[in-house]
Amino acid sequence: MIGLGLIGGSLLRAASAVGRVTWGATASEADVTAAAAEGFDVSADVEAALRRAGEQDALVVLAVPLTVIDDVLRKVGSVAPRCLLTDVASVKSSVLTSVRRLAPQTRFVGGHPMAGTAESGWRAGNAALFGGAAWVACVEEDTELAAWAEVARLALDVGAHVVPLTAKTHDEAVARISHLPHLLAAVLAAVGADGGPVPMALAAGSYADGTRVAGTRPELVRGMTEGNREALLPVLDEALGRLGAMRGSLASTGGLAATINAGHKGAQALAEARDVTPTGVRVNLSAPDAREGLRALGERGGRITAVADDTAIGEVG
Amino acid sequence: MIGLGLIGGSLLRAASAVGRVTWGATASEADVTAAAAEGFDVSADVEAALRRAGEQDALVVLAVPLTVIDDVLRKVGSVAPRCLLTDVASVKSSVLTSVRRLAPQTRFVGGHPMAGTAESGWRAGNAALFGGAAWVACVEEDTELAAWAEVARLALDVGAHVVPLTAKTHDEAVARISHLPHLLAAVLAAVGADGGPVPMALAAGSYADGTRVAGTRPELVRGMTEGNREALLPVLDEALGRLGAMRGSLASTGGLAATINAGHKGAQALAEARDVTPTGVRVNLSAPDAREGLRALGERGGRITAVADDTAIGEVG
Repeated sequence: MIGLGLIGGSLLRAASAVGRVTWGATASEADVTAAAAEGFDVSADVEAALRRAGEQDALVVLAVPLTVIDDVLRKVGSVAPRCLLTDVASVKSSVLTSVRRLAPQTRFVGGHPMAGTAESGWRAGNAALFGGAAWVACVEEDTELAAWAEVARLALDVGAHVVPLTAKTHDEAVARISHLPHLLAAVLAAVGADGGPVPMALAAGSYADGTRVAGTRPELVRGMTEGNREALLPVLDEALGRLGAMRGSLASTGGLAATINAGHKGAQALAEARDVTPTGVRVNLSAPDAREGLRALGERGGRITAVADDTAIGEVG
Repeated sequence: MIGLGLIGGSLLRAASAVGRVTWGATASEADVTAAAAEGFDVSADVEAALRRAGEQDALVVLAVPLTVIDDVLRKVGSVAPRCLLTDVASVKSSVLTSVRRLAPQTRFVGGHPMAGTAESGWRAGNAALFGGAAWVACVEEDTELAAWAEVARLALDVGAHVVPLTAKTHDEAVARISHLPHLLAAVLAAVGADGGPVPMALAAGSYADGTRVAGTRPELVRGMTEGNREALLPVLDEALGRLGAMRGSLASTGGLAATINAGHKGAQALAEARDVTPTGVRVNLSAPDAREGLRALGERGGRITAVADDTAIGEVG
């Protein structure tokens, strides 16, 4: 485990708790001290931890901020150039590009656990963080399926279910359901506070809900949104188009039915997606079309819930 | 109590629970049946309930949807033309205009409890709904302060604190902290669902928070937003201006620091507003500048927490 913040620290705890042999390293002295005090095998020597992983053919998990991921990948490329590698960053295309440039011989599978809080650092973590969460494990044209299965097993071991997607499909989806929410929350919090003390005194449920993630550390939000620029721009334009049409309608006819009904329908779509009785699906990981099978499952909103021998077992609504 | 839905039904329960003599009426047969079954003095005859209030000099609370408030005000004007009157609608200027036109001799004080859920109807209500909530009681140039004190006492009796504001100031504030959140939630829910099954499968905390109020009944959201058009348009333009600038920055330099930092600062402003140690304030309701005193308190983010004899007792941060 490289990086022992909220995600890396939680994953080190969770993987250890299910009996995996784990070790970690981070540049954060505070996180090393805190994790060591709890008995974990951790150090501040990232290169030594990577070398050990290379020697033991261990799965390396990069759980560092996006801003330093290239620096760490350079170390991977020089110290453990053929290791089994995954990451937990919230954008996947840019990490894939970096891996291809800086550590091209690694057996890499991009990953993203859809879990987290507004807090950060080792002390904010806990072994139960991933329970019930979706964990994207990327399947590209050249993804090695044995490596993919290793990453999926880790995610399943710590209580998540696995969603197989390409980096591109992942990035488009998180632009909608994570990056746009963060940016709309920021705009709402700014417009609310610009109104002075009266709006603050009257703020209740809808404002508290709508601004909650605006309290996230700005550098984390910048990392994920700025790092997903290509997928985020068209989604922002969709949102701006809807808001502009709404503004025009309010100014002219005074009516907001189109916007409000579309939003209500969207809220129902989320509830319905969670209410479907799923159908079982199996993907033979040694079949020639296994990558297509995994991606087709993910693109239909499905999930992998177990990996047994050479078969990924899942369900789709 | 005219109207026995979420707010009216909760207020009838809460006022009865503190020993007030209450009766109610509504056009909803279902709500009459449900409230009567719980022992409340209710009927489907709105005119009879209003006549009784006029005869007994009782406080009439209009808790009906904005779409029917003019119809009910016509009845008030004909059956109880000089009654003590308040309402609980989420916009205040348009109701004030209607009262001046349809029931001009009533002793009217506009009201708005900042409480509610996405549910509706008698069965959704409960006596504790207003505990800890802000309850705006409007102070206009011609507001009779004895009537204002009666409305404030009702709000205080059911556990709320009272915020004295003009209808105009109220409407500007709720455009920011209630109506804009509802519209942004609708846009987010629509853009999310437009992405198909993958975003729905990955949606987690930030999306769930940001879309929660998009599940509110569309006619309620339309009523409050369309009914507050004048105050809402400039607030929408502020939001569109911030989003447009953000979009431009992402497309050109790729940077989102300005947006994200402003949002983080806004989130802190809300937390700070709630963290201030308040100073006590007293307003003599029989003083010639009592209206100015009350409004000045409200405009600074303050609140009234008690009304004793002729004095409103409050605090401001």
